[in-house]
Amino acid sequence: MVRVALIGTSMISHQFVESSRRVPGIQLAGVLSRDADRAAAVAQQIGAPQSWSDIEEMLASPDVDAVYVASPNSLHHAQCRAALQAGKHVLVEKPAVTTAAEFMELIALAESQGVVLFEGMRNAHDPGMALVRELLPQVGTVRRVSFEYAQRSSRYDQVLAGEQVNIFDPEMAGGALNDLGVYCVSALVDLFGPPEHVAAQQVVVASGTDGSGVALMRYPGFVADVSWSKITASSRPSQIEGELGTITIDRIGEPRRVGLQLLGADPLEYEVDGADETGAFIGNMHLEMARFVELVDGAASAEVDQLRTVQTLRVLEAIRAACGSASGG
Amino acid sequence: MVRVALIGTSMISHQFVESSRRVPGIQLAGVLSRDADRAAAVAQQIGAPQSWSDIEEMLASPDVDAVYVASPNSLHHAQCRAALQAGKHVLVEKPAVTTAAEFMELIALAESQGVVLFEGMRNAHDPGMALVRELLPQVGTVRRVSFEYAQRSSRYDQVLAGEQVNIFDPEMAGGALNDLGVYCVSALVDLFGPPEHVAAQQVVVASGTDGSGVALMRYPGFVADVSWSKITASSRPSQIEGELGTITIDRIGEPRRVGLQLLGADPLEYEVDGADETGAFIGNMHLEMARFVELVDGAASAEVDQLRTVQTLRVLEAIRAACGSASGG
Repeated sequence: MVRVALIGTSMISHQFVESSRRVPGIQLAGVLSRDADRAAAVAQQIGAPQSWSDIEEMLASPDVDAVYVASPNSLHHAQCRAALQAGKHVLVEKPAVTTAAEFMELIALAESQGVVLFEGMRNAHDPGMALVRELLPQVGTVRRVSFEYAQRSSRYDQVLAGEQVNIFDPEMAGGALNDLGVYCVSALVDLFGPPEHVAAQQVVVASGTDGSGVALMRYPGFVADVSWSKITASSRPSQIEGELGTITIDRIGEPRRVGLQLLGADPLEYEVDGADETGAFIGNMHLEMARFVELVDGAASAEVDQLRTVQTLRVLEAIRAACGSASGG
Repeated sequence: MVRVALIGTSMISHQFVESSRRVPGIQLAGVLSRDADRAAAVAQQIGAPQSWSDIEEMLASPDVDAVYVASPNSLHHAQCRAALQAGKHVLVEKPAVTTAAEFMELIALAESQGVVLFEGMRNAHDPGMALVRELLPQVGTVRRVSFEYAQRSSRYDQVLAGEQVNIFDPEMAGGALNDLGVYCVSALVDLFGPPEHVAAQQVVVASGTDGSGVALMRYPGFVADVSWSKITASSRPSQIEGELGTITIDRIGEPRRVGLQLLGADPLEYEVDGADETGAFIGNMHLEMARFVELVDGAASAEVDQLRTVQTLRVLEAIRAACGSASGG
């Protein structure tokens, strides 16, 4: 049983609690928030036995085996380091940190401490992406990959009203690339490895982060583009085009309908099960959590996952550099 | 009545003949082909009164008011110049020529000769694009434009078999950007003007032209990407994303279903009529021909159309330069 303390009390933390009910090996140890009252209130709300407002106090607790870092992105690095130094396993929300170098430093620390460092990248563990990988050989030589994740955020209205919100705050390493584009980039490097060249353009919103953007990448024999937006909406599928056919993916963060259109054949559509026994939609966060438990239990090595994170962070850095934007926002 | 001689006997010439039946002001004067027998055979097939194998002879004919240049792209410039010098109006298939400078030279020549120079860009005259322009203000501040045209060519199988075909022949200025990407670029500059910056990547096929590619462009306040392919297929719509909604365009070369999804509203779909009185699908080539007749009749100025062509050719040049490929192929 892995006893996990939550760092952060945003919506994603509540999703974590909900998803943890589906993962037998996880138990909630408590909640950390800078605001002690808020920490206590959330702990009560989610049925966690403890709450803390001081990270060192939490990390000193023998009742905590691991932390789930779901704070604003800019805080991830210091919190991960503190947790690893305290000998705790770490599950950190995407993007884990701002640069590949930071993550490699944390990998080394985790190794020296004999604990697990693992980034929560939901789609990497989704059966929909496994299906895409399985179908890939059928489309022949890949010539174009186009992954997109555009979902207009209601919090963008707050930005338009002149308010500062974490997810659009450059000080918090917010922005659409970090929040949504990262899923596209991670899926891309997971399937095809790192690109040879990256160009990118972004739209900067009033709060100072990107609101949307597109990156263009060269691979041997094909071209890939990824796009992301929290200020506009798109319902187009992501797509992999080969010389013999095209694979469509309804949502790159959580593929539930995968299409296969082979040259001269009838289109096929595969449904990916994403519901529980009652038919309720359950998302895919529990899958990354199950993977984390597997790693903590020593049943698998974190290397593959860590490599994906490092390669993803390198591409994010290249995209930011191409856009001329500061790191992490 | 404008009496038009066809230069070229490829499929597009036959479409021209078919479409000319819907344009009252156009009459077929004859067919030019380097191969006299082929010219005669096609003339008979399409019911044209004359055929020629020598362009000077054709241009000397008092029965020819205008030419329709539908030869391989690399021949357009010399043939357009010869026709304009002979005082003939010119309708030239897209892309008109290889560079903006070449087209501007032809514009000057047309002006000095008092004749019309006009590039056949089907979608520029399509009611579907007019509808898109009309809907555009509803989506608010535009943040992303993504136009794509990917249609796998059966002639690519010939390339794979080691044959050389005009449309994939660099000597003929073939390739997917010139054949399909040009529709995306033209629609983009028609709606939004020239971009501030262009990056691009392409896939080169065995015959030496591009087979597919993607260009990424910066505009003030938004990012645009256009993509094209003759070696893969896509049925994704083209798209314009604004802060208040998204417009989808089923086919950028010939929009027949235009979608409008406004924030928080039910999706709307507009059907654009593309059939004749019998319900048969008639395409949109007759619309560019009707425009040509209008210009020849002096009922409108060709300036807007010529500016679109010049701006489109400039972007094509920038894309080729970004890809490091030779001009026109």
